[in-house]
Amino acid sequence: MKNHKLVLAKRPDPTVSADIFQLVEDHVPSLAEGQFLVRNQYLSADPAMRGWVMDMPNYIPPVALGDVMRSFAVGEVIDSKHPGYAVGESVYGRFGWQEMAISNGSDVERKVDPDDAPLSANLHVLGMTGATAWFGLTEIGNPQAGETVVVSTAAGAVGSIVGQIAKARGCRTIGITGSDEKAARCLEEFGYDAVINYKTCEDLSTELAAACPDGVDVYFDNVSGPISDAVMSFFNVGARMTVCGVIGISPAHLNGPRVARTLLVKRARMQGFLIFDHMHRLSEAVEGLLPLYKAGKLKFSEEVYNGLEQAPVGLESLLAGTNQGKVLVKL
Amino acid sequence: MKNHKLVLAKRPDPTVSADIFQLVEDHVPSLAEGQFLVRNQYLSADPAMRGWVMDMPNYIPPVALGDVMRSFAVGEVIDSKHPGYAVGESVYGRFGWQEMAISNGSDVERKVDPDDAPLSANLHVLGMTGATAWFGLTEIGNPQAGETVVVSTAAGAVGSIVGQIAKARGCRTIGITGSDEKAARCLEEFGYDAVINYKTCEDLSTELAAACPDGVDVYFDNVSGPISDAVMSFFNVGARMTVCGVIGISPAHLNGPRVARTLLVKRARMQGFLIFDHMHRLSEAVEGLLPLYKAGKLKFSEEVYNGLEQAPVGLESLLAGTNQGKVLVKL
Repeated sequence: MKNHKLVLAKRPDPTVSADIFQLVEDHVPSLAEGQFLVRNQYLSADPAMRGWVMDMPNYIPPVALGDVMRSFAVGEVIDSKHPGYAVGESVYGRFGWQEMAISNGSDVERKVDPDDAPLSANLHVLGMTGATAWFGLTEIGNPQAGETVVVSTAAGAVGSIVGQIAKARGCRTIGITGSDEKAARCLEEFGYDAVINYKTCEDLSTELAAACPDGVDVYFDNVSGPISDAVMSFFNVGARMTVCGVIGISPAHLNGPRVARTLLVKRARMQGFLIFDHMHRLSEAVEGLLPLYKAGKLKFSEEVYNGLEQAPVGLESLLAGTNQGKVLVKL
Repeated sequence: MKNHKLVLAKRPDPTVSADIFQLVEDHVPSLAEGQFLVRNQYLSADPAMRGWVMDMPNYIPPVALGDVMRSFAVGEVIDSKHPGYAVGESVYGRFGWQEMAISNGSDVERKVDPDDAPLSANLHVLGMTGATAWFGLTEIGNPQAGETVVVSTAAGAVGSIVGQIAKARGCRTIGITGSDEKAARCLEEFGYDAVINYKTCEDLSTELAAACPDGVDVYFDNVSGPISDAVMSFFNVGARMTVCGVIGISPAHLNGPRVARTLLVKRARMQGFLIFDHMHRLSEAVEGLLPLYKAGKLKFSEEVYNGLEQAPVGLESLLAGTNQGKVLVKL
C-alpha cells in the first residue's frame, strides 16, 4: 500500500514557507505485533509548528530534517495487530502530515466517537485547542459567575473558545482583538459582552474602563506587552491571569512596567500555561467541552484545505494571520 | 484605673519619626456587657506601620489623628464581662500602643497558651510574622523535599522564618541579604545552605548559578527589582514565586524585563500575598509552626525596648533597618 507524506526538507530561513516541506511517496510497511495502521482523514496546522521546524531549544526537540512533519490528525484504524485498537475505530493523535501512519498507541491522544461531533472538531474544539482553553481558563482562571473575564486575541482559535466557556459560566466577557471584522465575530459569533479593537481605539485604558466597570477578575492572555499592561491595571483583588502566549513582546517591548506591585496589592496570580503538560488529561477537557458543543454554545470556524499537498499552504496562511478559522487539511 | 497610651499626633513629613506620637494619660472606663479588659505585656512594632500612619490609600484605613496607634500586642485578661474571655487568659490581638485595652473580642487574633512559648513569641514566630512566612511559603510556594528555595531579605523577620521552614521540609535553602553580618546569621542561625550578599558580590547571576546548581523551584520574594530579575532567570519548570514585598522597586527600577515569557516557558506561577487575608486562619499557622519552634528549629532574635514611651524609638530603629531582630516593647 502506498503512502504519501510531507517531510521537512530544510529549515526556515528565517520565515516558515511552504517550500521547506517536500512531498514524498513510499510504501506502508507491514504491521508488527502491537502496531496498527491509521488512515488520516484530517490533519492540523498549528502556530506551534513554527517552533517545531526551527533548530532551537524548545519544550520538545525540533522535527529532524527528512522526518515527516509533526502534526495532530484524526483518522480511522484500518488494520491492527494491537489488542487495544480495532479496525473501524477513530483516533486523534500525533500522526503527522501523511496519509497513513503506523502507531503503537503512544502517539494517540484519545479515541473519538464520530457520533459526538464531526471528525474535524477533534482537531479544534474537542482537541488540543479546546483543551488549551479549557484547562487554561478553568484551572488557572477559575472564573465564577458574575466575574469579568478579559481575553486577548479574543477571536483566535483558543481565545474564541475561552470567551465562550466563560460566557457559559455566567461571566461578563470582554474580548480584545485587532480588526473590525474580528471584533464583529467576537460579538456576533462568540457572544462577548464587549469587544475592543486595540489597533483602532483611541486609548486602550479608557476602553477597558468602560468595558469593565467592575474591574477584571480573570485575564486569559495570549499576547503580553502593552495590551497586558493596560489590562492588569484593572485587576481586582484576587485576580487570576493565564499566560498562554507572549506574541506581543516585540523587541521594542522586552522591558515594561514591573508587575510585582500590582500582584502584591491585588493579591493576584499570574501563571504560565502550556497545553502539552495537560494533554494526558484531554478526556477531562472533552467531558467539559462536549456538552457546550452539543448545546451550540461553542461556535467555531474552519478553514479547510483539500489534499495533503495543500498543508504547507494552510500553514503559511495561519502564520501570516490571514486565515479565517482553524486551519485543517482534509484528505 | 489609669491608662497610658500613644496617640498619633501628626502625619509623617515625610519620614516616620518618634515625634509624630504623643503619650497621653487617661482613665479606663468601666466595662459594658460583652467587653473585657486586657493588660498589655508586649507591644509590637512592624514595617506595616509606615503605611498605617500615612493618609494614603492602603488595604486598611490609616490611623486617625488622635487615635491610639494601631498595633499587635499580647496581654492578659484582668477583668471581663464577656462569656468567652476569662480573667487570667492570655490573648494576642490588635490592642494598640497602650497599657490597657478594652475589647469585645473582635480585635483578638488568638488566645495564647503561656506554657507553649514565651509570651513575646506570639508577636513574631507564632504571630503575624510567623503566619506570613507559613502561609506565603507553604500555600503559594508549596516546597517539596529536595527542591531549591530562594529567599530575599533572608535575615529579615519574615525571611528568616521562611528559610527555616523550608529547611525543616528538606529543601536546599539559599538566602539573599545585604550585609556580611546578616549573611553570617543566615548561615549560623537560620541554617541556609548558601547565602549571597547582593551588595558586595561581583555578579548576582554568577553567585546564583553557583548556589543553585539544580535551578530554583520556589522563590519567596520581599524585594522585586533587579534581584528578582536575576533569581527568575534560574526558575525551573513549575516554579512558584510568592510576592510578599516590593521594596526593591525604586524609581529607577519601575520598569524591568517582562516576566511573561519566563512564566510561560517555565509554566511558573507568581502570586501576591498579604497576611491580612489570612489572619483568621492564624491558628492553622501556629499548629504548623509550634512543633518547629519547640524543636528549636525556628531561631529568632528580639530587640526589646522597655516601657511604652520607648515604642516610637523602636519603630524608628525598625524603619531605619538598624534593628537586630524583631522590635518589641515590654510593658
